[in-house]
Amino acid sequence: MNDVITVLRQQRAEHVERLQAWLRIPSVSTDTQRRADVRRAADFIADELRAHGFTTEVHPTAGHPIVLAEWCGAPGAPTLLVYGHYDVQPPDPVELWRHGPFEPTQEGRKLVARGATDDKGQLLALVRGIGGRLAHFAELPVNVKFLIEGEEEIGSQNLVPFIEAHRERLRADIALIADTSQFGPGLPAITVGLKGLCYLEVELFGPAMDLHSGSFGGAVANPANVLCSLIGKLHDEHGRVLIPGFYDDVVALTAAERAAIRALPFDESEFQRSVGVRTLFGETGYSTLERKWARPTLDVNGLLSGWTGEGAKTVLPARALAKFSMRLVPNQRPDRIRDLAVAFLRELCPATVRLEVRSLHGAEPVLVPSGGPYFQAAARAMELGFGRRPVLIREGGSIPVVSDFKRLLGLDSILMGLGLPDDGAHSPNEKFDLDDYQRGIETAAHLLDELAQHRP
Amino acid sequence: MNDVITVLRQQRAEHVERLQAWLRIPSVSTDTQRRADVRRAADFIADELRAHGFTTEVHPTAGHPIVLAEWCGAPGAPTLLVYGHYDVQPPDPVELWRHGPFEPTQEGRKLVARGATDDKGQLLALVRGIGGRLAHFAELPVNVKFLIEGEEEIGSQNLVPFIEAHRERLRADIALIADTSQFGPGLPAITVGLKGLCYLEVELFGPAMDLHSGSFGGAVANPANVLCSLIGKLHDEHGRVLIPGFYDDVVALTAAERAAIRALPFDESEFQRSVGVRTLFGETGYSTLERKWARPTLDVNGLLSGWTGEGAKTVLPARALAKFSMRLVPNQRPDRIRDLAVAFLRELCPATVRLEVRSLHGAEPVLVPSGGPYFQAAARAMELGFGRRPVLIREGGSIPVVSDFKRLLGLDSILMGLGLPDDGAHSPNEKFDLDDYQRGIETAAHLLDELAQHRP
Repeated sequence: MNDVITVLRQQRAEHVERLQAWLRIPSVSTDTQRRADVRRAADFIADELRAHGFTTEVHPTAGHPIVLAEWCGAPGAPTLLVYGHYDVQPPDPVELWRHGPFEPTQEGRKLVARGATDDKGQLLALVRGIGGRLAHFAELPVNVKFLIEGEEEIGSQNLVPFIEAHRERLRADIALIADTSQFGPGLPAITVGLKGLCYLEVELFGPAMDLHSGSFGGAVANPANVLCSLIGKLHDEHGRVLIPGFYDDVVALTAAERAAIRALPFDESEFQRSVGVRTLFGETGYSTLERKWARPTLDVNGLLSGWTGEGAKTVLPARALAKFSMRLVPNQRPDRIRDLAVAFLRELCPATVRLEVRSLHGAEPVLVPSGGPYFQAAARAMELGFGRRPVLIREGGSIPVVSDFKRLLGLDSILMGLGLPDDGAHSPNEKFDLDDYQRGIETAAHLLDELAQHRP
Repeated sequence: MNDVITVLRQQRAEHVERLQAWLRIPSVSTDTQRRADVRRAADFIADELRAHGFTTEVHPTAGHPIVLAEWCGAPGAPTLLVYGHYDVQPPDPVELWRHGPFEPTQEGRKLVARGATDDKGQLLALVRGIGGRLAHFAELPVNVKFLIEGEEEIGSQNLVPFIEAHRERLRADIALIADTSQFGPGLPAITVGLKGLCYLEVELFGPAMDLHSGSFGGAVANPANVLCSLIGKLHDEHGRVLIPGFYDDVVALTAAERAAIRALPFDESEFQRSVGVRTLFGETGYSTLERKWARPTLDVNGLLSGWTGEGAKTVLPARALAKFSMRLVPNQRPDRIRDLAVAFLRELCPATVRLEVRSLHGAEPVLVPSGGPYFQAAARAMELGFGRRPVLIREGGSIPVVSDFKRLLGLDSILMGLGLPDDGAHSPNEKFDLDDYQRGIETAAHLLDELAQHRP
């Protein structure tokens, strides 16, 4: 084992160079202009897996392709299924980046680019750690499969059908995902709870065309005014969501869970500084970590109406659009929450405008069991790779594949966070610490031995 | 006189051809990329005036140039000051136009292009009617000056200093503006009331950068949520503005004014159909025309925050922007209304976000006296040009220069509407009826004789 760690350390520069090459490919899955780039990003990771000794296939789908790779030469040993994604969020607002979002740039020990942490950097750490071991020894102590998609940022619509069609090929004992983060610098973490998601797009239609706000103001309802009024009624001033029934299925935190959260070294003022706000805010009666991890939320993600350019245009807009998402906790169900939200919007919406609601995205909330042997193996590997026993945390983000794996393959997922909470996934100047990248690579190599200690 | 009318009718095709040439110049004053085009539009109308026999100058300003032209060869006769603007609104949303907004296209008797009615078409009617008379007879029965600016759509910031610096040059007995509309097809109108304007841009700043709405939702205030809540509190559900003090200075309509408005042939259901709404809406207790003409309003003109592209981006936006304008009636003052609105926004805004308010535009409301000899001359000219005595109406739009002329030059303005209410000023597929264009040209020629019957 020390052999391979030595080799993986000697390859540091190559690890970084390969990640930079991947980050240069603008694989923005939501942008239909980027289809060819998204495809190139899939081919890149397929080539990488093949070069390390995995049997690799790139499967076309109705959307972006799915990469499947495997090495199954350890009969009787456990099988690990690694999931990741090669698509990235749009880089907007581009003008806030210190350099091109697809020109990866090293700033100190950090590599800055869209996708650096979410998920190219974290996924490539697993590929190069496990793959490095396979390339070095020409065998692994466990069986390993990779399932890598290109539609994670847009709802993974083709993933579930793919899993359903390849249940046999994907059969495994445990899943591994590196798409979360450590609790903080030097505090590695395994995530055991994820929020679900219900993402809606609301559009209000008023007059048939944009009108002059002087000549027509006062005569017809303004859909932008109405939209603000509707959205403004979704919360009270204490941060509580006002959709009737929204909290019905929420499992309350136990006293023990609240105590465990309190015991974590969370520095509120440092957190506040890191996001650049003058004061934190959220639902009254809960700590910041509780709100982030275990309380459902509703956030407007986008607003668009009328004249948004420079200066003044006195227009009464024909339409107004809002995108908003609700983050869900056990046992809220995205379909029910969607229905409740749509019903409330319809109730609030006056007859003066026409309401359209589109559901863009849904994901179940998840709690991962932390007692089993594979989970413990992962914790030991992370301790070896990062030099410290990981803490157990929750995450406000959604990783729908976790509940898909459970439902379709009966698999639990280990969510190993290699990045940091301030890496800026989805933000300008997203980054990944190159030391964490190296620790992740080594953790992945260690994990194979730790998993091999248990026979399925 | 019949001579010149005959000539003006023979020139029909040339009138249209010149208007089309002017409309092809995209003189969008708010767009800093269009400076050269705006300049070309100024030169175009200057050349047109010069060609008809006026002494013409193009004056640079800190913004777009001002065109000044005059013929003052009738000592002792009245002097008419014609005002107009050669700049146009942005064409957005461009995708709703049936053809390029700057490719003027004749559809039946209508000419469709940005600026067709507001104000190139209406202004060119005055220039070609008065200018045609000068070109034909080499003299006019009254003195005529033209003051034509290129910043009407962006607040006319350089116009007042220009007027102040050229009081002597601009001395006149009456002003004429064609930038309003008829009451309806075949119902010519002179506008005697204009709303004022107070246009604000509100921006809320939350976190220092866009954040992942899953990881950070519930921890910090979302400026888009807060913005909707603020804007939603500016109205009650009966369409009444809730800014404290907003209605304090409003002069109530008299019973006689309400009766005169009721007497106009206004077809509510036809109006409703023309704007494409399922139901009209506005402040309870007033008719649609009363709300349009004589009640103050507040309309959101634009909203922008976060992700507004295709599909879902789970972002908690760093900032949120709204543009909104209030239309004012006598005796509301734009400065006082701005102060009241800003104070109310500051009172409503929670400490979790930072509020910035920018004042983009202001204009005083106006009531024009309709009893004097020049006003009566204009009414007679319009009757000659359009074949029917004009009705007296009000307008919801603002023409700040009307109060500027009164304050700085002691001049009343006659607002002769040549266009139609459904011309779509500020909307896609803006149009101008070519028959109205011709009637406007002839009205302008008649006006000179009618004005000459009175000695100042």
